[in-house]
Amino acid sequence: MLEPVWQQLDPKNARHLVEAGIPCVKRMGLKVIVMEPRRVELLMPLKGNENHIGIMYAGALFAVAEIPGGALHLTTFDVSRYVPVIKHMDIRFRRPAVTDVTIAVELSQEEVDRVNRELEAQGKSDFVLHGEVKDTAGNVVAVTVATYQARRMA
Amino acid sequence: MLEPVWQQLDPKNARHLVEAGIPCVKRMGLKVIVMEPRRVELLMPLKGNENHIGIMYAGALFAVAEIPGGALHLTTFDVSRYVPVIKHMDIRFRRPAVTDVTIAVELSQEEVDRVNRELEAQGKSDFVLHGEVKDTAGNVVAVTVATYQARRMA
Repeated sequence: MLEPVWQQLDPKNARHLVEAGIPCVKRMGLKVIVMEPRRVELLMPLKGNENHIGIMYAGALFAVAEIPGGALHLTTFDVSRYVPVIKHMDIRFRRPAVTDVTIAVELSQEEVDRVNRELEAQGKSDFVLHGEVKDTAGNVVAVTVATYQARRMA
Repeated sequence: MLEPVWQQLDPKNARHLVEAGIPCVKRMGLKVIVMEPRRVELLMPLKGNENHIGIMYAGALFAVAEIPGGALHLTTFDVSRYVPVIKHMDIRFRRPAVTDVTIAVELSQEEVDRVNRELEAQGKSDFVLHGEVKDTAGNVVAVTVATYQARRMA
C-alpha cells in the first residue's frame, strides 16, 4: 500500500513532497512557506480554488488545514519507520475567503516526546493539531481541530 | 460576489453544475449518480485522488461529503433566490478508501418545509446532513456531519 515516494523520502525533498506528493493537493497549488521541526506554515492560493460564488472552495480550506499533519510528521518524526494518517477533522467555516489563505501550526516538544514514546512502545500514536486559516488581512476564515495518527509502516 | 453560473442556473444543468461548477471538484472527477428533490447520491473516483500511501486523499473524501449540501440545495430550494454555504464539517475517517466511494444523502420533507419557512421569514436557514462515505464493498470509510446555511442572495 505504501508508495515508493514515501518510502524513499529524502528529507531535502520534504517540501516538494508536501507541495506535489498528493496530486489532488498539487492541483490546488498549495505552497510551503515554513517547514521546520515542530512548525509548518502553508499557503493556499485563491486562484484556481474558487467555488460557485467566487470565494475559496471549502475543500481547499480543508486541504490547507489537513496537510500540516503530514508536513509536521515529515519534519519531526522518523519517516523511515512511521507514516501519518488523518483520523478526524472538525472544520468551522467562519467567513468567506476572498484572498489567498495561510495556516501556521506548531507541535510542542513535550508533544513530540510523548508521540515518540508511544511510537516506540506501541507502534502508533495520535496527535492533535489546532489550526486557524487566515486571509491576507489576518481574518480567521476557518478554525480546525485535526487528529492524526502516526503509525509504523506495514 | 455571486458568479453568473449560479445566478443563471437552469435546473436542467444542475447535474453539470455539481460536477463541473467548482473547478477544484471537477478536477477530482466527482460524478452525480442520483440527483432529485431531497435526495442525492454522488461518486468520487479513486483514480487521480490517491494520497502519499496510495489510498484516497482525505480532501477528496471531504469533497464528496461536502458537495451534497449544494446539490440538495439545487434540487430542493429556490435557487433563483437562495445560495448555500457550508458552515461546519465534522468528518471521521474510519478506514482507508482503496476503491471509488459513494455517498447518499437525504433531506426529509419536514426539514425542507422548516428551511423554506425560515428562508421566507429570515432570509436564511441552517440545515444539517449526516453522511456515510462507502467503498464499493459497502464499507464505511468516513462518517460526516455537515451544517449548511441557505441564504438570500446579496
